Amino acid sequence: MHVSILGSAAGGGFPQWNCACSNCRSLRNGSFSGKARSQLQVAISPDGQSWFLLNASPDIRCQIEACPSLHPRNGTRHTPISGILLTSADLDQVLGLLQLREFQPLTIRATASIRRILREDNSVFATLNRIPDQADWIDIVPGQPFQLSSGNAPLICHSFSLATHYPSYVSQERAARLVSAEASLGFMIDDQGRRLAYFPAVPDLDSQLLSTLGEADVILFDGTFWTDDELSSVRGGGPLAREIGHIPVSGPEGSLRKLAGLTNARRIYVHVNNTNPMLNESGPEYRQVRDAGWEVAEDGWQFTL
Amino acid sequence: MHVSILGSAAGGGFPQWNCACSNCRSLRNGSFSGKARSQLQVAISPDGQSWFLLNASPDIRCQIEACPSLHPRNGTRHTPISGILLTSADLDQVLGLLQLREFQPLTIRATASIRRILREDNSVFATLNRIPDQADWIDIVPGQPFQLSSGNAPLICHSFSLATHYPSYVSQERAARLVSAEASLGFMIDDQGRRLAYFPAVPDLDSQLLSTLGEADVILFDGTFWTDDELSSVRGGGPLAREIGHIPVSGPEGSLRKLAGLTNARRIYVHVNNTNPMLNESGPEYRQVRDAGWEVAEDGWQFTL
Repeated sequence: MHVSILGSAAGGGFPQWNCACSNCRSLRNGSFSGKARSQLQVAISPDGQSWFLLNASPDIRCQIEACPSLHPRNGTRHTPISGILLTSADLDQVLGLLQLREFQPLTIRATASIRRILREDNSVFATLNRIPDQADWIDIVPGQPFQLSSGNAPLICHSFSLATHYPSYVSQERAARLVSAEASLGFMIDDQGRRLAYFPAVPDLDSQLLSTLGEADVILFDGTFWTDDELSSVRGGGPLAREIGHIPVSGPEGSLRKLAGLTNARRIYVHVNNTNPMLNESGPEYRQVRDAGWEVAEDGWQFTL
Repeated sequence: MHVSILGSAAGGGFPQWNCACSNCRSLRNGSFSGKARSQLQVAISPDGQSWFLLNASPDIRCQIEACPSLHPRNGTRHTPISGILLTSADLDQVLGLLQLREFQPLTIRATASIRRILREDNSVFATLNRIPDQADWIDIVPGQPFQLSSGNAPLICHSFSLATHYPSYVSQERAARLVSAEASLGFMIDDQGRRLAYFPAVPDLDSQLLSTLGEADVILFDGTFWTDDELSSVRGGGPLAREIGHIPVSGPEGSLRKLAGLTNARRIYVHVNNTNPMLNESGPEYRQVRDAGWEVAEDGWQFTL
């Protein structure tokens, strides 16, 4: 399986447009020991020819242009992108869909609840169905595996229900009519026994999820926040990390400690928020992560497994 | 008045993600005699401190980062962007609003019909009103001038109703309950007698509009398509330019001929589609435009008037 990390930051990217925290400020003035990052976007392929996007970032246009594998190849209109899989209805995971219009046939897989939020509550998504056979939406049922591609050796995707909260733009009345287990997913994608875990938003790590992650060869895991109170401490206000669905990296209950036993897998933090001190490669937080055997994803990374 | 052209292409940008027309193909392989362009985005300021965005492109995140004048200056959270003016509900003009979230107070001016499409028919826009005093929507009434900024010498914006068709994602039933004169606007922005015309989508040029444009010192005008049948001739299918609200540049009824008398103004084509041959600086179309005294906007241009 080919894996391309086109973007690695949380919503807003790094730097974030209206943020002048020490990370963003020093990145802009050239003194930061670390890299700018666009919003999280991963693409996978069983053969290097046909690609599947994991979510659709608002930065997808530039991310596709930066990745020659995703450029059109045949005829005047073409894309090697065969499908898109959504883990949630978060804007930083779905807005890119609206940039993949231009009458291009697409297969979009999401839970029925996420599909309903996007298609029933948002007229802008009608732009993906201007012609027959344009966007084909296929429901993901959490727990039921499905195949990607129709080749001889398709990828098998297993989905795991993680969180029960919908994004803040979904009204409470609307959320009450949705299935809570369909709010947020993680994926384990299997290519003939080689497994990629894609878990960009994990509110909590229980023993069942630990066991699941133990089967992966590569883990792309929620690296949004370093501490639970990061937003309020850095910018003077904001919810706790766990309140918005992200277990912090550090601390006795953080992911670094909880996942310490998974030493057989390559472990990469993704969806890193602009405020996270582990972005600073000269800082103790980055050192702690690297010493624990973890990597912090960067835009443009590619690997196979 | 300070003017910054942050992006200059039509929807999809140049190159466009799923397009392999001769322009896009040769740009990607390095043989094109011309420049890549992000989607149209213009920012204006009366004083270089407080800025107003004309529309909100899907590329706004990178466009803000590329323009130091738009970076935060004071405190941990800040933006010098004082407001956003929308000319239409086209996705390439409004999607960027959803990237300007992060709890930032914003003033958004649009016609009541455009506001209703976005806020009533699309739950995702609730993300701009997560806290009190976040997005403040102010109605534009076509023909009624309004002030931008509260300084001693505010900019005065005049709006002109141009087209009566709403974007394709707006259902016919919905459109029937909207005001057709509120579908698409052009702006004339006046800074103590110096005037910028912003007309990125013009379906037709009548004598009244010609007279209006004659009062401008700088004209940013619809340069989407070279010919009326450009989409069908380049990629084998698609509507006519005029059918989707764009007068072509060339031909006896094109804008180059019709606006030939406006020699006192600086005249710049914007919103240039990836298929437009005038993007090729070695081609006869580009030469024809330049010989007629017009310019083809490029990302990053800045000027004052």
